[in-house]
Amino acid sequence: MATDQSRQEAAEPDTYDEFESRVERIRNVGNAAGILRWDQEVVMPEAGTPARAQQLSTLSSISHDLLTAEETGDLLADLEADDLTDEQAAVVREIRREYDRATSVPEELVAEISETTANAHPAWTEAKANDDFEAFAPTLEKLVALKRAYADHVDPDADPYAVLFAEYEPYIDLETAERVLERLRENLVPLIDAVQDSDADLETDAFAGEFDDDDQEALARDVLDSLGYDWDRGRLDTAPHPFSSGTQFDARVTTRFEADDLLGSITSTIHEFGHANYTLGLPDEGYATPLGEARDLSVHESQSRLWENHVGRSQPFWEHFLPIARERFPELEDVTPEEAYEAANQVHDDNLIRVEADELTYHLHIVIRFEIERDLIRGDLEVAEVPEVWNDKYEAYLGVRPETDAEGCLQDIHWSHGSFGYFPTYSLGSVLAAQLYDTAEDDLGSEAPRASETPSGDEPRGDLADDIRNADFDAINGWLRENVHQHGKRYTTPDLIEGATGQELTAEPFLEYVESKYGELYELEKY
Amino acid sequence: MATDQSRQEAAEPDTYDEFESRVERIRNVGNAAGILRWDQEVVMPEAGTPARAQQLSTLSSISHDLLTAEETGDLLADLEADDLTDEQAAVVREIRREYDRATSVPEELVAEISETTANAHPAWTEAKANDDFEAFAPTLEKLVALKRAYADHVDPDADPYAVLFAEYEPYIDLETAERVLERLRENLVPLIDAVQDSDADLETDAFAGEFDDDDQEALARDVLDSLGYDWDRGRLDTAPHPFSSGTQFDARVTTRFEADDLLGSITSTIHEFGHANYTLGLPDEGYATPLGEARDLSVHESQSRLWENHVGRSQPFWEHFLPIARERFPELEDVTPEEAYEAANQVHDDNLIRVEADELTYHLHIVIRFEIERDLIRGDLEVAEVPEVWNDKYEAYLGVRPETDAEGCLQDIHWSHGSFGYFPTYSLGSVLAAQLYDTAEDDLGSEAPRASETPSGDEPRGDLADDIRNADFDAINGWLRENVHQHGKRYTTPDLIEGATGQELTAEPFLEYVESKYGELYELEKY
Repeated sequence: MATDQSRQEAAEPDTYDEFESRVERIRNVGNAAGILRWDQEVVMPEAGTPARAQQLSTLSSISHDLLTAEETGDLLADLEADDLTDEQAAVVREIRREYDRATSVPEELVAEISETTANAHPAWTEAKANDDFEAFAPTLEKLVALKRAYADHVDPDADPYAVLFAEYEPYIDLETAERVLERLRENLVPLIDAVQDSDADLETDAFAGEFDDDDQEALARDVLDSLGYDWDRGRLDTAPHPFSSGTQFDARVTTRFEADDLLGSITSTIHEFGHANYTLGLPDEGYATPLGEARDLSVHESQSRLWENHVGRSQPFWEHFLPIARERFPELEDVTPEEAYEAANQVHDDNLIRVEADELTYHLHIVIRFEIERDLIRGDLEVAEVPEVWNDKYEAYLGVRPETDAEGCLQDIHWSHGSFGYFPTYSLGSVLAAQLYDTAEDDLGSEAPRASETPSGDEPRGDLADDIRNADFDAINGWLRENVHQHGKRYTTPDLIEGATGQELTAEPFLEYVESKYGELYELEKY
Repeated sequence: MATDQSRQEAAEPDTYDEFESRVERIRNVGNAAGILRWDQEVVMPEAGTPARAQQLSTLSSISHDLLTAEETGDLLADLEADDLTDEQAAVVREIRREYDRATSVPEELVAEISETTANAHPAWTEAKANDDFEAFAPTLEKLVALKRAYADHVDPDADPYAVLFAEYEPYIDLETAERVLERLRENLVPLIDAVQDSDADLETDAFAGEFDDDDQEALARDVLDSLGYDWDRGRLDTAPHPFSSGTQFDARVTTRFEADDLLGSITSTIHEFGHANYTLGLPDEGYATPLGEARDLSVHESQSRLWENHVGRSQPFWEHFLPIARERFPELEDVTPEEAYEAANQVHDDNLIRVEADELTYHLHIVIRFEIERDLIRGDLEVAEVPEVWNDKYEAYLGVRPETDAEGCLQDIHWSHGSFGYFPTYSLGSVLAAQLYDTAEDDLGSEAPRASETPSGDEPRGDLADDIRNADFDAINGWLRENVHQHGKRYTTPDLIEGATGQELTAEPFLEYVESKYGELYELEKY
């Protein structure tokens, strides 16, 4: 290590190069671990688990050691005292944040959390199977205490829930998130009431039947073809819990097939496509640095939900896709695009389970989890109170009361992972999706006149609905690439959102979208 | 780090544990890289290469840094001064060897070799496509010089070819390998002459035809079922160049299918099974240390060749397997086990290409490469002389003269990888396979009387041929597990061979096997 003085002089190219090499090393270890996790979920033989656990734990430990090494701290300090380009400064900002978090928490606490969550998983599985919340309560209490201690190490002066939320969503402050969730609750509760009171007769059986797995897989490939998935940089497989993972060079999609849920496999495939499509839009030259990495969970989820909901659950999509689906499944011959659209957007009455929820009720599931986990972490709620509070909130917000904790507060795996602060990003993703789609519609509409208005010349593009109807996704995807994907982590999330949409994160476009869509579908006078 | 004195006192448990953790870390990084390489060959999308290259290079560099770190050297020195169990001493012996090699070669030279081989691959591909040895010659010269320099760093006093050979086969000395190869040459040249002069009319068209890929894959699974492959710890996929890889928890097989080469896919699958079966026999508790790792290339190859040749190319195997093959391919209905056996063991006349060679001529391909690369590395042969020497040797040993360098000295990829010293392990593997099979036959025959000799009691096992006929591989596999697999790297290769067979590595059982088998097949009077 050079002296302080010579460092100052030589810093710029050498120091940054050394720093960048270190970052790339950390990221390549992480990306290798990503391949090992994909392998584990998709192709690994059953008995491979013990070896895989050791491999992943080793890579995680190496990555942690590289990040928290004294050299990393020294390089960060040197670079923060230097003149950096905007891109360099962004990389330094991101790694500084990770470094501060990783070095502020004692290794023993990290190890204890890791061990506790490893044991929590089977405890939760058993408690859920036996509908026995009390059996899981001590584990949950321990996890809450450990995560509160974790937050206290990261920032003893901050609200502990805000610190945990920032683990998943580092730049959106908790007040903004709370404001958005509050707007969702205020507006969705009456909207869902109105839907449930509606006499509208939606077609709900359009996709009823039994559908062969192999044909469903072929159709999932048709979906990805329609959306323009780049097969040279991706692949489709099945996994028990669909996910997508990878890098801009290799972004893979998984899905699953159930004989009686063709619609579910289609929408799930489109959702995962949205994630992979974001990853594929990250710049190649930023690979293995934050400049080539997706912004955090809410932005990622905005991409999956934009494609799933604004594209895949639109009527123009089904105008395009039904003829393709009919080639695989002739039994869909009599289904119309309108009926497919209605089936893809029906709101259920007795919606107790989050992962089966529709586009409207989904967010009340999130609001309930958010309110409960926030109060748990803040010490405003005791673990023992969770089941009753959970059930009361379901009754108040969704008009249903779970009869068991298995279909109540034990339904989700996340808390057994120690993931407190994660749930809100699902709803923030939907909210941002609507905000982005809205802006894209404005931008693209004003730039490209409608077909009917241009009498001659090159074939003009219509509006986004026309694009979807024609399976021409160049314009919307170009807009997303330009305004979101290409930036990687160069901007903080609020700056990225402001740059793309001209305003801060706001629930209004989402609320307008669902009120208009469901008002029309369910013939609601008020909406 | 403690002081020297306190180290001496505390050494035993703590020092060894620390050492073992470090070894496990190195091995888990290597095993993770193994998964990444499997992924690259089997499932990775085409465009994933640049990212994968960086990931693999990072893991390799981390592994190298961990191995060559001062701490590793200190731990080795401490432990070598201590009383160790035999198992501990074996682990220390193996890591010491790797440490000494890795620390003796300057990083710049390693980097230069790595860069040169990366460029050599396309140069070789192009030279082979254009049948232009001169275009590849400068690259080959550079590789020879670099590998000679490498050998000089490892041991300036040793024969450089012996040093390179020890990279692949650390414990078999080159004199032993040379003696074995010399015996093969002396005996196989006249045997092949006799075969080529024979008037015997072997059935060679038993597997002629076009065979569907999916049915071939189903049959490959039948093969693995017959051999007792543990699907909980493995899987079968296709790859352009079949290989097997993994650990005792997850040992995967790949194969390939060509419409007109059903026999090739079956024997290749059995070959890769042999490798995977060795890996699966390594002790679970030795995972991520040398005690749970396969001995080197010759022993590994002995396992693949034992199963491929002694089992898969035997007549009893076809007595068992033909009925199974007929269920997938009814066109085999009229083929008899004898005919299948003859087809699987025919010796070709114009055998120019190593990878297409039969069980006899194969070893002359190896002897030729061995003699040439040894002389190149020792400086006894100039690169410019290679084509003519190659062709002369083919004429002398195999009675054929290549008309082009593309089907002559440019046919194999290995030298463009800088792999000098690798080829001999193929033949040593066959030789060891025969030696092991011979001993197993003796051991199992004498312990278990033949069925006909035991009038009552439990169902007795017959001899190995009976076992194969009944697809009962418990006895042979149990013998291999006990005498080879379970030991991992606990013994050096000569000790392992001596322990298993009671003698040092010798070509005699192999020569007896081929002389007897081919003497009978080709009705040779002399044999």
